[in-house]
Amino acid sequence: MSIPKTIKGIGSVNEKEWTSPQELEYSPRKFNDEDVLIRIDYCGICGSDVHTMSGGWGRYRNLVPGHEIVGRAMKVGSKVKSIKAGDRVGVGPMAGSCGECKLCLSDNEHYCKKVISTYRSKNYKADNYFMQGGYATHIIVEENFVFSIPDGIPSNVAGPLMCAGLTVFSPLYRNLKDNNNEKLVGIIGIGGLGHLAIMFAKALGAKVVAFSRSNSKKQDALSLGADDYVATGEDTNWVSKYEREFDVLLNCASSFTDINYQSFFGALKVQGNFITVGSPELSETLDLHAVQLVVSGIALGGSLAGSKKEALVMLDLAAKRKIFPVIEELPMSVENVKHGWQKVQKSDVKYRLVLTGIQNHFAKPKL
Amino acid sequence: MSIPKTIKGIGSVNEKEWTSPQELEYSPRKFNDEDVLIRIDYCGICGSDVHTMSGGWGRYRNLVPGHEIVGRAMKVGSKVKSIKAGDRVGVGPMAGSCGECKLCLSDNEHYCKKVISTYRSKNYKADNYFMQGGYATHIIVEENFVFSIPDGIPSNVAGPLMCAGLTVFSPLYRNLKDNNNEKLVGIIGIGGLGHLAIMFAKALGAKVVAFSRSNSKKQDALSLGADDYVATGEDTNWVSKYEREFDVLLNCASSFTDINYQSFFGALKVQGNFITVGSPELSETLDLHAVQLVVSGIALGGSLAGSKKEALVMLDLAAKRKIFPVIEELPMSVENVKHGWQKVQKSDVKYRLVLTGIQNHFAKPKL
Repeated sequence: MSIPKTIKGIGSVNEKEWTSPQELEYSPRKFNDEDVLIRIDYCGICGSDVHTMSGGWGRYRNLVPGHEIVGRAMKVGSKVKSIKAGDRVGVGPMAGSCGECKLCLSDNEHYCKKVISTYRSKNYKADNYFMQGGYATHIIVEENFVFSIPDGIPSNVAGPLMCAGLTVFSPLYRNLKDNNNEKLVGIIGIGGLGHLAIMFAKALGAKVVAFSRSNSKKQDALSLGADDYVATGEDTNWVSKYEREFDVLLNCASSFTDINYQSFFGALKVQGNFITVGSPELSETLDLHAVQLVVSGIALGGSLAGSKKEALVMLDLAAKRKIFPVIEELPMSVENVKHGWQKVQKSDVKYRLVLTGIQNHFAKPKL
Repeated sequence: MSIPKTIKGIGSVNEKEWTSPQELEYSPRKFNDEDVLIRIDYCGICGSDVHTMSGGWGRYRNLVPGHEIVGRAMKVGSKVKSIKAGDRVGVGPMAGSCGECKLCLSDNEHYCKKVISTYRSKNYKADNYFMQGGYATHIIVEENFVFSIPDGIPSNVAGPLMCAGLTVFSPLYRNLKDNNNEKLVGIIGIGGLGHLAIMFAKALGAKVVAFSRSNSKKQDALSLGADDYVATGEDTNWVSKYEREFDVLLNCASSFTDINYQSFFGALKVQGNFITVGSPELSETLDLHAVQLVVSGIALGGSLAGSKKEALVMLDLAAKRKIFPVIEELPMSVENVKHGWQKVQKSDVKYRLVLTGIQNHFAKPKL
């Protein structure tokens, strides 16, 4: 298949008019020998799409978001080895990196200083092309950031694994993979990230406690596999019950300071890790006393997405254990993109949104 | 030997008059079956002594500090197994704990919520006795916090190992002991803690880079075994030279915000640990953006002292590898306690102060 002359997508013309998405057309980027052309069938709507489109990370013009992409490889460059035309593939929040630095060479390519975001980056490997995302008919992504999807995973649920799934899987895997003893893991915030974190932590052998403010998500969390559920706003006894018990607390809430992290620090074992994976606002600071870290002996860290190697381990595990996000499908349209973004803004999503029928939408004759 | 009727020491009557230390006499605490009576020969002067005496952790009346204690076990309780009368022993900053909680039962007794500080705690196991420290003729400490000193370590240098040594050894040991690959460790702040950290990190198999503001401690650091030295105030290239290189950065500076920790974060590998062991002021907050932890994938932690198990490993290693603090000796006297505290306040110590001849001082007839 040849590269299409134009790509059609749905995005916004700028951050001021972001609540009026519209159809946009643009040329594809230069196709390199390391690249894969993907025809997109599904794309998840991620919280960071809304954050970006509303100007949270700065101004833009004519931007199509989307980095939970599922589709078919239609053409592969001459140097591509692991993907062939016709493969079902996915793409997450990153679409390229330098490939040469120590991070790229040690399965930490997602932390490369020159990482290229799936949308809104300038791609220095392709004439500084302004990257457009997955709410669109096609995308070109370098092989290292294209993941083959195993047969056991239905396409409609595969998208959210690419961003939300990998984001929680990577730190859980790094903390749990080498351990023979059952670890106790707390998942803070039961939403798009947290509901997947419960399932992956269980699949990785941990005992899991879900934390949310109210009891409204209790049944969901237990159904997903959580061994216990704590409504921090209703149960004041949890602090003593779980004092110094957790090996890992994974903070899936998008705000850090919104949660009572001092209570959570007291729930960690010595050398336990509190790991934030949500996307706090750039301006959000931690009002933390240095001495708290010293006297508790715990560590406070963060984690960003995951490597391709981890993505493949995750997808294999998801296929085997049927770890699929709970999704709400939205057939591709301008109205549904707008509707989806509104739902994300209102935190009215259980638990991920997926745009479906993307090819179909753009193939329809316009009235 | 029987318990002395009175103990003599040097301390201050209250925090307002802390710069006029004087001789104080007090009764020993109740002697329990788990206890060891120690006749003190040497005691290090620690930065936290000055912090305490000057009121940094609140008011007090008639307090003798000192928690880098070296002496002889003179009497052991009926339940004591690991120490016998006549043994040369040391005591660090903690002198008791509940012995029953999960921290006490998992070699983290130094993090026990009911830990009893060597001085200035009320000892709930001994009639709420107000604990007096090691600038004194004797102290009674429970066995779990009394460490036998191997023959290879001279008494005059043993004291600073009990607090400064263990404080840096514990986090280094926990991070380095299970690793076969050489790790790169940075020691930030080359003073009482840092100079010992260089030696222990080397002995534990790491490659070590010493960080200080100026080049004034370069020769010392290299002599102690550092593989490289960075004067952060003079060399601006270190950030790129060591970008994403360190497994562990041990912050031995007493202030956290005084150092440019953002540069240090960039020097850590993904999943690298920045560990603070100094004693920041209670009021010191970290002005840190949550997103920095996420995008860097590093962790920020703290560590407090060490366990008895670690103390014994450390002392064994120190004896075998001749890891001794660089000390300045001050013969015990009111004047020298005052002089020592002044030197600590002015940061004019290379690298630890030790009070010597304690028995001799108090045995002298007073004019």
